Amino acid sequence: MTDRQLHLGVILTGAGGPGRPKTWLYDDLPLDSSVNVDWYIELSQLAEKGKLDLVFIVDSQFITPNSPPHYLNRLEPFTLLAALAVSTKNIGLVGTATTSYNDPFNLARRFASLDNISHGRAGWNVVTSGDSGTAGNYGRDEHYDYDTRYGRAHEAIEVIQGLWDSYEDDAFPRDRATGQFFDPSKQHALNHEGTYFPKVVGPLNIQRSEQGWPVIFQAGDSDQGRDLGAALGEGIFTHGESFEKTKAFRTDLRSRAEAKGRDADSVIILPGVRFFIGDTDEEARALEQRANDMNWDFDRAQAEFGRAFGWHDFSQYDPEAPFPDVREIATLAWKTQADEVTDTALREGLTLRQTVERFAAPRRGHFVGTAQHVADLIEEWFTGEATDGFNIYVEQPAQFRRFVEEVVPILQQKGIFRTEYEASTLRGNLGLPIPANRYTAAREASREHAAIS
Amino acid sequence: MTDRQLHLGVILTGAGGPGRPKTWLYDDLPLDSSVNVDWYIELSQLAEKGKLDLVFIVDSQFITPNSPPHYLNRLEPFTLLAALAVSTKNIGLVGTATTSYNDPFNLARRFASLDNISHGRAGWNVVTSGDSGTAGNYGRDEHYDYDTRYGRAHEAIEVIQGLWDSYEDDAFPRDRATGQFFDPSKQHALNHEGTYFPKVVGPLNIQRSEQGWPVIFQAGDSDQGRDLGAALGEGIFTHGESFEKTKAFRTDLRSRAEAKGRDADSVIILPGVRFFIGDTDEEARALEQRANDMNWDFDRAQAEFGRAFGWHDFSQYDPEAPFPDVREIATLAWKTQADEVTDTALREGLTLRQTVERFAAPRRGHFVGTAQHVADLIEEWFTGEATDGFNIYVEQPAQFRRFVEEVVPILQQKGIFRTEYEASTLRGNLGLPIPANRYTAAREASREHAAIS
Ligand SMILES: Cc1cc2nc3c(=O)[nH]c(=O)nc-3n(C[C@H](O)[C@H](O)[C@H](O)COP(=O)(O)O)c2cc1C
Ligand SMILES: Cc1cc2nc3c(=O)[nH]c(=O)nc-3n(C[C@H](O)[C@H](O)[C@H](O)COP(=O)(O)O)c2cc1C
Repeated sequence: MTDRQLHLGVILTGAGGPGRPKTWLYDDLPLDSSVNVDWYIELSQLAEKGKLDLVFIVDSQFITPNSPPHYLNRLEPFTLLAALAVSTKNIGLVGTATTSYNDPFNLARRFASLDNISHGRAGWNVVTSGDSGTAGNYGRDEHYDYDTRYGRAHEAIEVIQGLWDSYEDDAFPRDRATGQFFDPSKQHALNHEGTYFPKVVGPLNIQRSEQGWPVIFQAGDSDQGRDLGAALGEGIFTHGESFEKTKAFRTDLRSRAEAKGRDADSVIILPGVRFFIGDTDEEARALEQRANDMNWDFDRAQAEFGRAFGWHDFSQYDPEAPFPDVREIATLAWKTQADEVTDTALREGLTLRQTVERFAAPRRGHFVGTAQHVADLIEEWFTGEATDGFNIYVEQPAQFRRFVEEVVPILQQKGIFRTEYEASTLRGNLGLPIPANRYTAAREASREHAAIS
Repeated sequence: MTDRQLHLGVILTGAGGPGRPKTWLYDDLPLDSSVNVDWYIELSQLAEKGKLDLVFIVDSQFITPNSPPHYLNRLEPFTLLAALAVSTKNIGLVGTATTSYNDPFNLARRFASLDNISHGRAGWNVVTSGDSGTAGNYGRDEHYDYDTRYGRAHEAIEVIQGLWDSYEDDAFPRDRATGQFFDPSKQHALNHEGTYFPKVVGPLNIQRSEQGWPVIFQAGDSDQGRDLGAALGEGIFTHGESFEKTKAFRTDLRSRAEAKGRDADSVIILPGVRFFIGDTDEEARALEQRANDMNWDFDRAQAEFGRAFGWHDFSQYDPEAPFPDVREIATLAWKTQADEVTDTALREGLTLRQTVERFAAPRRGHFVGTAQHVADLIEEWFTGEATDGFNIYVEQPAQFRRFVEEVVPILQQKGIFRTEYEASTLRGNLGLPIPANRYTAAREASREHAAIS
């Protein structure tokens, strides 16, 4: 653990994500940032200058007029990430995709293509979709229940990893002297038969990349979600509310992974956090205060607060009356979040207004201060084993520039962050192994077996 | 019709497409061209230097060990095209996608994102998948029959065009002075209820591009396929076997379009052709002969010939016996092609070997000769109204360079091809109108109606 290294990602949600509806007002953001590929390229190149591990693209497929600005109008992750792939050299490219409303074969192809285009820098953030309304965009009356959602996710990842192994690494000799392009014995159909995906034959029509498979990230907080991450996740995206909560999450995730027979160090926990950096701690606090004030509007917050409950309209209730327990409508949405909100409100006897304020108002964050102070806090969380790194929400590009130019060098001096990329692949930079191709491994195992017996 | 302009596309199938299994032997191709994004970028930039209208990416999702080299191992169209979008400025980017194994919502999003990233240069080549085995990669035991395939395609295009109109063009005022990012009255759910796609609610979470909607291309030769192209196609990809056949196809397609109340000039026919250019006609013929010899191998050709019949194994029959009529197995594959092959073989009493030779051996093409000769032939086909342009199969990059550097200038001198891009959008360069947003149009119509009454 002595050479444990910090890992950093950057989340680009230009115009403003959940709870930050006024981000687009910052005048160092292009007005159309959420659909402006040049802006994404510029910020990704800045992140690469800071030697960050990865760019992280969140996603959703269902909107209402109350959705945050960035969600209303955004680029689809694969098209965006491929554009970033040819505009950057070393940084990882992680895209969010749901297993609830995509065919495994299509997902396998797209991530493998992104992985080839970027020469081994692709990652997949596996989600199951919390917006119950998403179902209606894909021909379904209702979203899947939790067991089905996570059952699909688990099976989909295994199918997709199987498809990624369709070709062994030496399947394409491409030898002009002998005239042999392809070795058919190195192409393998998967012939999957399963529960949620009864039939996926294969083979996939694309080779593995320099890193073998894209890196699997996972985001989802329920018991089923944590088990999925523990079973198959290599990176976990989570909340970064406090040192204690994040540490508890990491400890839980690691012990679940170990219970499944995995090395806990092969699961990297990245909480999403916001940074405010000033010349003095006071200046940074003032920047944060301004951002929080700017983004606070009770009606709007209440509308967006309804999202966890399947975009339930809470404006129909008296804001001064006790918080209404309507959690059963969240069963097909963000149940984990809705339960936590409801339990807290009932336990503490909160009104609707107080509950919205507690959960939907911008809060004071931890990573606020001078570059030195922020770097010290990062070190504290990292060496205190609350986290393996951070996924940084970019709000003001100027603030992210300060992070890259002022905080990163201090982390480098502290010896906890790289001064150069270790590798040209995302796996290489995250310190994750390249998965062996299963057919090659099986052949080698049987050869060894034959040699022994 | 006096200012009718020629339209040119380029089809990039690096390592070798159907019937051209040895293309990868050309030493001016990188060995990994089919998965080499830099090669695609280089060729697209060359095409752009030649002021070509578009890059055309074909696709498939099912392979066998007998698939052509390019098909075995290729980049997925959306990831590839997005990489090309940020590497080029004016050229159109047309991707093939099947409506048989994609959700309309996902297709709508990806094409709209590509259209935004490229600032209005996206096109969609709508296909229904001829490889019956594709079904097995998407959980189905069998491919759809023709009526279902084309019924889905028709409905999918209409759903997708509906989703593309989710936002009116002035939906995002993004006015920092007033604080208004978004005008909710300009966001529209589609609420589609249909036959093949029972429920697609919307809205789509991305704005229209500079060209309104991506351009709809179509490729499919059956009666149902032609009707789809005539109803909704703006560009049609077809075969370029001979002047007469291509002209007959164009005449048929135009009259079908007119029968549906459309302006036939708004449907652009682009046959796929191969060019061989030499300093003399003899040199060009020799180049073609070399390519044809190199690509001819009876066993391999017979294996690939089986593709139209759902990859039927014809090696089980005596090659010297009469061609076996097994067309019923092609019902869920390339029925149109299988029927033509079988009818011809039976009518002319061909053996299996003769049939494979007739349909799968590389043939002598038409566009072979000096740059001047080739340009004259292009003019002849164009002014003779056999075609509106061509989709050029690139084999040797050096040959495509000669096309750009030698043939294009002659076409420009003839006054049938642009010397500069007319527009920054694909619609602009193809001379196609920008579709009005349906909700804006309806509002304007009702306003006019109110003013009149
Ligand atoms: C930190 C975090 C980030 C997430 N990001 C996304 C996202 O970008 N897109 C998405 O569809 N879901 C995202 N999810 C949600 C999952 O889709 C999941 O369905 C939802 O959280 C409900 O499941 P759970 O109760 O297991 O968390 C995220 C979840 C967490 C905890
Ligand atoms: C010129 C031409 C090009 C085509 N290109 C593709 C392609 O790239 N990918 C694909 O899946 N199908 C392609 N198709 C085939 C269609 O998917 C269609 O299913 C198939 O041709 C059978 O339908 P049909 O009898 O109407 O032609 C193409 C068809 C034609 C005529």
